[in-house]
Amino acid sequence: MTDHTPNSWDARADAHSFYGFTDLPTIHERGTVVLTHGDGPYIFDVEGKKYLDANSGLWNMVAGFNHPGLTEAAKAQYDKFPGYHAFFGRMTDQTVMLSEKLIEVSPFQTGKVFYTNSGSEANDTLVKMLWFLARAEGKPERRKILTRMNGYHGVTAVSASMTGKPYNALFGLPFDGFIHLTCPHFWREGMAGESEAQFTSRLAHELEDVIRREGAETIAGFVAEPVIGAGGVIPPPAGYFQAIQAVLAKHNIPLIADEVICGFGRTGNVWGAQTYDFVPDAIISSKALTAGYFPMGAVILGPDLADRLQVASEMVEEFPHGFTASGHPVGCAIALKSIDIILNDGLLDAVRDLTPRFESGLAELAQHPHIGEARSKGLMGALEAVADKPTKAPFAADLSVSERIANACTDNGLICRPLGQAIVLCPPFIMTDAQMDEMFDKLHTALGQVFADIT
Amino acid sequence: MTDHTPNSWDARADAHSFYGFTDLPTIHERGTVVLTHGDGPYIFDVEGKKYLDANSGLWNMVAGFNHPGLTEAAKAQYDKFPGYHAFFGRMTDQTVMLSEKLIEVSPFQTGKVFYTNSGSEANDTLVKMLWFLARAEGKPERRKILTRMNGYHGVTAVSASMTGKPYNALFGLPFDGFIHLTCPHFWREGMAGESEAQFTSRLAHELEDVIRREGAETIAGFVAEPVIGAGGVIPPPAGYFQAIQAVLAKHNIPLIADEVICGFGRTGNVWGAQTYDFVPDAIISSKALTAGYFPMGAVILGPDLADRLQVASEMVEEFPHGFTASGHPVGCAIALKSIDIILNDGLLDAVRDLTPRFESGLAELAQHPHIGEARSKGLMGALEAVADKPTKAPFAADLSVSERIANACTDNGLICRPLGQAIVLCPPFIMTDAQMDEMFDKLHTALGQVFADIT
Repeated sequence: MTDHTPNSWDARADAHSFYGFTDLPTIHERGTVVLTHGDGPYIFDVEGKKYLDANSGLWNMVAGFNHPGLTEAAKAQYDKFPGYHAFFGRMTDQTVMLSEKLIEVSPFQTGKVFYTNSGSEANDTLVKMLWFLARAEGKPERRKILTRMNGYHGVTAVSASMTGKPYNALFGLPFDGFIHLTCPHFWREGMAGESEAQFTSRLAHELEDVIRREGAETIAGFVAEPVIGAGGVIPPPAGYFQAIQAVLAKHNIPLIADEVICGFGRTGNVWGAQTYDFVPDAIISSKALTAGYFPMGAVILGPDLADRLQVASEMVEEFPHGFTASGHPVGCAIALKSIDIILNDGLLDAVRDLTPRFESGLAELAQHPHIGEARSKGLMGALEAVADKPTKAPFAADLSVSERIANACTDNGLICRPLGQAIVLCPPFIMTDAQMDEMFDKLHTALGQVFADIT
Repeated sequence: MTDHTPNSWDARADAHSFYGFTDLPTIHERGTVVLTHGDGPYIFDVEGKKYLDANSGLWNMVAGFNHPGLTEAAKAQYDKFPGYHAFFGRMTDQTVMLSEKLIEVSPFQTGKVFYTNSGSEANDTLVKMLWFLARAEGKPERRKILTRMNGYHGVTAVSASMTGKPYNALFGLPFDGFIHLTCPHFWREGMAGESEAQFTSRLAHELEDVIRREGAETIAGFVAEPVIGAGGVIPPPAGYFQAIQAVLAKHNIPLIADEVICGFGRTGNVWGAQTYDFVPDAIISSKALTAGYFPMGAVILGPDLADRLQVASEMVEEFPHGFTASGHPVGCAIALKSIDIILNDGLLDAVRDLTPRFESGLAELAQHPHIGEARSKGLMGALEAVADKPTKAPFAADLSVSERIANACTDNGLICRPLGQAIVLCPPFIMTDAQMDEMFDKLHTALGQVFADIT
């Protein structure tokens, strides 16, 4: 039980924190969980309670909460050079080495890297790059950004404008010129009698129609997560990116892969774009890039965008943009280690090895009469709760079905994430088979409890 | 000499980095300086060359480049808990403790803290908070943001829109509704025969006129650095914040202090607002908050904004905003240590002790016939180069006077920053008297060389 006395951790948190992405009624009822340390995929709170974190923190702690290689890399760099910027023609050796490594492991033969502190900043930077390029190339009207409903791209005002979530209306966002296409979720958005291939074709036609309506010359780029993550783990329908990319190519509109969640292994390959067999014009990276051990984002520009942006910058002598901690040496040292352990030290292999067990666990839970869909790719998955399976009718919103399931899990020592009426699972890549059994067992128990209570 | 051979660090940096805030002609001529480590206020490049960094990195490395207390705090936290988020009613003990400490050392009796990864994100978050509040309070038209020309608030599209710099036009920014008032720089903006008090009064009237023209009900907030930093180190004229705040208060417009540079000691007090004797409605913090050892920003809400935002969030059950690394435990542990060493371990005292020597060094260089103004507050200062002192006429832009001075300094082992036609100095708080002498001696030599060359 959470301690609510005045000097409790819970009361101290509440007194001085302005909570983000936190359901306030739940906090008032249950208090804040204040965490002190971790071990592998487990985290521990101030009262010593242990939780298996099936969310990898926030998709990012893919190597768990005490990976010795990562902590050693961080500590060694703190002893060597604990901070510097990348402005004015200066940068650290770690920054140079990470950029080389990122291009080496990217789908690009050549390219250039720009660092930020988050995926939000990386998407915001990408949009500024596209706007800068448009003006330099004499096309100032080329400003509109296409994304999809339920796509999540961050929370700066511009990256929130890219994000296709209704809550952004609370801020008076999106800005004009941010256009959200249909969410590529066949189970929910497919029409009666429509095949998956027909659904894909319809989405490609929608894109073509939107480009015609808006004018291709007004569109700066199309940004998409290979698998939509915070929108509820939505893998695209078959052939989706091929169909979309063909339309974009016809109109010279760049396709940018937001690989903040998918990148560095989550889908079973280094990049989600590999998993879906397309080469984007640029990649947005963050999260697993440092395995959550440091705030870092990156815009990885493929050859065409890199060359054109370089020309555009030379015209005005500089690209007037950058963050104080862009290319921070500790972040770069950690990212070099993170990439090394994912690619060379078994973490990517582990994703591939664990995926069949993950898929079968989800499929088993999907047998439940109130689970409408189990969907996944690699080690990201979701179970969609429904009131009625044949009609896919959701539960009444005031039942807060997914929050109840997540809270029942938390009580039982499992962290998973409610998203709409789905439960999202994205376990760290270091999970053992036994820990995966524990995850599914606890979730199974919680589903049984909650559905029994509300039906 | 920089090594330009194909496998040199310089060539490797150039091949894979998209440079930000970097003068590209200078890079082509001089190459990139690739840095490996630091010692106190000195940094070292791959060829072993040593530089005294009179910029504290980018205003932020106030404790130098190998502070044992800060590296130990970082390393201890990496061993304890190397990463977690602050969403869904969970956060780490370090996050709770830092929020308590920030309110304790703030000018506020009560308040709440929201974490970001940078000053840019903190300003962007603040604007989203003000827009969220406006809509929740039934005033959706209350969206305009007032800042000043030369004010610098960041590079996300919204924080760049707040920044009053002409280069933002290259991105098609600012967005509508971001209004830049006159830069409060008496030496440059004061009219013939106008006293400093009259200048202050004119700026307050300008604010009043703008509020009347735009409509007070359309204005969400006024954001100002106590001393304008990246705009060229511009302390306000006497009485400025009192005059401005009186106008804002009359119209119920919040005054937000962007303390990214001034906060935590730079001006000789914890906050720049203290130095200028005003209490803002919220504070934006970053940079010295972690002494540059971790990317972190914070919005510190005073009691009125904290309470109103809490009410607004309760109405919709959550504040749907937050960054993956908001409240990262390593950043919080480092910030706790940074605040401790600044307030309790002599760094703030050092700023006060060093300020007279800093001021006299600037005053001495201002005797030069081509230095038009020396301006400073605490340990931030600038020397403005002029072609003609009596008329304040600048040098021809194509002479790149400040870049030449900075390059001459770099050749001689001193890092300082060209900004317009000024040279900016913001030494780390740990500088010794001898190091300050070295800084001024090297700058004196460079000024002599460059002015002899170009006049």
